[in-house]
Order: sequence, then structure tokens, then C-alpha cells
Amino acid sequence: MTLNNDMTIIVLQKAVSDFRDARDWRQFHSPKNLSMSIAIEAAELMEHFQWLTTSEANSLAEQNPEARQAIVEELADVLIYCFSLADILDCDIAEIMLDKLAKNNAKYPTDQYRGRY
Amino acid sequence: MTLNNDMTIIVLQKAVSDFRDARDWRQFHSPKNLSMSIAIEAAELMEHFQWLTTSEANSLAEQNPEARQAIVEELADVLIYCFSLADILDCDIAEIMLDKLAKNNAKYPTDQYRGRY
Amino acid sequence: MTLNNDMTIIVLQKAVSDFRDARDWRQFHSPKNLSMSIAIEAAELMEHFQWLTTSEANSLAEQNPEARQAIVEELADVLIYCFSLADILDCDIAEIMLDKLAKNNAKYPTDQYRGRY
Amino acid sequence: MTLNNDMTIIVLQKAVSDFRDARDWRQFHSPKNLSMSIAIEAAELMEHFQWLTTSEANSLAEQNPEARQAIVEELADVLIYCFSLADILDCDIAEIMLDKLAKNNAKYPTDQYRGRY
Repeated sequence: MTLNNDMTIIVLQKAVSDFRDARDWRQFHSPKNLSMSIAIEAAELMEHFQWLTTSEANSLAEQNPEARQAIVEELADVLIYCFSLADILDCDIAEIMLDKLAKNNAKYPTDQYRGRY
Repeated sequence: MTLNNDMTIIVLQKAVSDFRDARDWRQFHSPKNLSMSIAIEAAELMEHFQWLTTSEANSLAEQNPEARQAIVEELADVLIYCFSLADILDCDIAEIMLDKLAKNNAKYPTDQYRGRY
Repeated sequence: MTLNNDMTIIVLQKAVSDFRDARDWRQFHSPKNLSMSIAIEAAELMEHFQWLTTSEANSLAEQNPEARQAIVEELADVLIYCFSLADILDCDIAEIMLDKLAKNNAKYPTDQYRGRY
Repeated sequence: MTLNNDMTIIVLQKAVSDFRDARDWRQFHSPKNLSMSIAIEAAELMEHFQWLTTSEANSLAEQNPEARQAIVEELADVLIYCFSLADILDCDIAEIMLDKLAKNNAKYPTDQYRGRY
């Protein structure tokens, strides 16, 4: 873990919306379009693992720096669109993540779900 | 914007990995499976806007508090899996987002892309 | 293979469009919405294999008749929306599949791609 | 509708599996991988409509022959992988589509669902 992860959510949120606003792209960022964009980038991320066995997929990022770079860029694209959607919905990313984790915590008690889905 | 968005990425990252480890779910979190999970949750998010016109989708979250709550929970699920994947790839979320924004900044000069994709 | 697979595409295409028209749902079937629907049903199909290893996924349909039934129903949903999209684009399913196979045939010569992607 | 749509499902199914077997790709076609492939191609299809309004998306295929060609090729890719999955699950495409339409017919009575989802 590096220093950057000490960055606050609000700083990243602003970087994402500044990028969008510098191009006047807010007009394209309807929630319908952004939900499609998240799904499209998620599929591009998935594409890297499409034909690999689980163990090949596990070692891909470790052993192949170029593949790793491509994978983290796709992950970044998903995150950027998620932050864009949070922005237009005016919701607080930290709050919705913590709320959902709390809800999941109640739904999946650790003693019943340890080691199994 | 609220106080929570001042939370650092590292705090959220830890909340996500603690949830996973309390259930011993690290074993299921291969990059292949997590990329599928991100795509599955993205589709559940998209489902809320599937049959709506753009303008109906725009007003859905504003006018229907229950729909808004369901939408932000799906968005939170996508984010939680993104953080989970970043964790097993040992990558820095702030860094990869800022790097990708810088790359996109060079790829889409503001004077050429203002108001159009 | 059973007798049903001797059914012509045109008969299935008509069954799909009759179902839609009996409910006056043509108005919702824009290509944008149908492409989302195909992706959403594809994700529901994927959900059955999300946490399974490749070998668990391989045996799931064989060993678990209920899971098999659920899986083929999701596959049917994807196909139904694909036929719906072909209908509104007024394209011939057999033709586009055979054309794409011919194109792929030229792109992936058998001597170069045997046993590897 | 053209002559080709009089083609039987079984002929298309054989064209798809012959293409695969000529490259010895059956080994990669696990249900888990094929479900990912269907979702990935579905996302590539969706990408054509990502930033368009509903009405722009409606007219795209009609007014732009190149876009139409690209769209039907993506649709063909989704269909080819669906046929591949049906093949390894040894299920009858016509049967599963007609069964699902019958089930949907019972679930969505025409008098209750006319003109609304």
C-alpha cells in the first residue's frame, strides 16, 4: 500500500468530474448511459481472463507486467464511471460502500458463511 | 458532498478486505471470478434503467427514493468488487484512477472533444 | 439432437415477435434497450458459474438437474432478446451467423489456431 | 425475411460446432468461459448505442450502413456463442426458446401487461 491510498474520495471525485466538465460531457452522462458504460468497461476487464483457467488467470497479473498494466487500466475505467455515476446521483461513495457492507454483514453472518457462499 | 467523502481510500479498502477475510472468502476471489462479479453487479445496476427512456431514467433517482436506494446499493456492489480486485492485484486505487485520467487527458484533447465523443 | 432443432429459424422468429406484439411491447424494443437486455440476461447466465472453479462449472449442468434447468432458461432469455433485436433490425439470423463464421474462418486459419487462441 | 431464415437450427448448430472443432477449441469451451464470452460480446454490441439517445440509436442502423454491419456482426457473435453453449450443454435451442416463451406467456398475461412492463 502506498501513500496515494491516503488520498480522500473527494479528491478523486473532483478529478473525475473536472475531466468530464473540461470536455462538456455532462450532457452525455445520464444514469442510463453511465450504467451501460460501467457494464461495457467491466466486460473489457473480463476479456483478459476469458479463456484462461483459474490458475492461469491467477498468475497472469503477477507474471506479465504488460497484461497487469492493461488489467488495472480497465479496472480504473470501471471505477472512473462509477465515480461519474455517484457524482450525478449526488451520492457519497464512502457512505454507500459502508452502508452496503453493513447490510451484507447482517445478511451473511460470519459463523454461517465462513468458507462458503 | 458530505464528511464521509473525506474518508481515505485506504480506510474503505480495509473495510472491504476485512469483510472478505471475516468469512474466509479470499479463496473465491480470483481475478477471473472478481471480473465476473463486477460485470454481474454492473448488469444489476443497468437493469433499473433497462426499459426507461433517457428522460425517465434521469428523473427516476430524483423522484423515487426507493428506486434511488436500490440503484446506489447496486453501485456500491460494483465498487466493493472493484476494491476487492484492486486488493488482490495489490494496486493503488487512487494511483490507477489518476494515471488513467492523465492518459485519457492526452487521448482526448479538450479543444477537439468539447461537447462530442 | 431432437426433432425440434429441425425447426426453421423463421418459425422461432415469429414465436418471439408474436409474444412481443400480443403485449404491444414493440414500443420498448429499441435497439439500445434490447442491447441492454441481452447484456443483462447474459449476466444472469454468468451468475450460475460466478464462484465455481472451471471443473465445478463443467459438472454443474450434468449433476444438478435444477441448476441445468435454470441455466438453459437464462440461455433462452439471451436468445429470445437476440431474436427480438434481429427482428427490429430486419436482419436474417442464419445469414448473419454464416457470414460471421465465414469472416472468422478467414481471420483464424485452422493451421495457425489449432488448439490455441 | 429471406430464404435463409428457412434454414433449420440444426444446420446452424453444426456450422458453429464445425468451426470450433476445426480449431480444436472445444477444450476452451467450458460453460463458465462461454457465459463470459456471451457477456463480452453483448457488451461490444451495447457499445454501439452507449452515448446515443434512444432516437439516435433507433435511426443508427437505418441511416448508417457501416454501423448496421458492425452491429449485426456483434449480434452474430452473441448468437454464435449461445449456440456453442447450447451445444456443450446438449440442449435443443428451439425447445428451450419455446419452453421459455410458454413460461413467460403464463407469467405475463396479455390483458395485464399490454403496453406496460
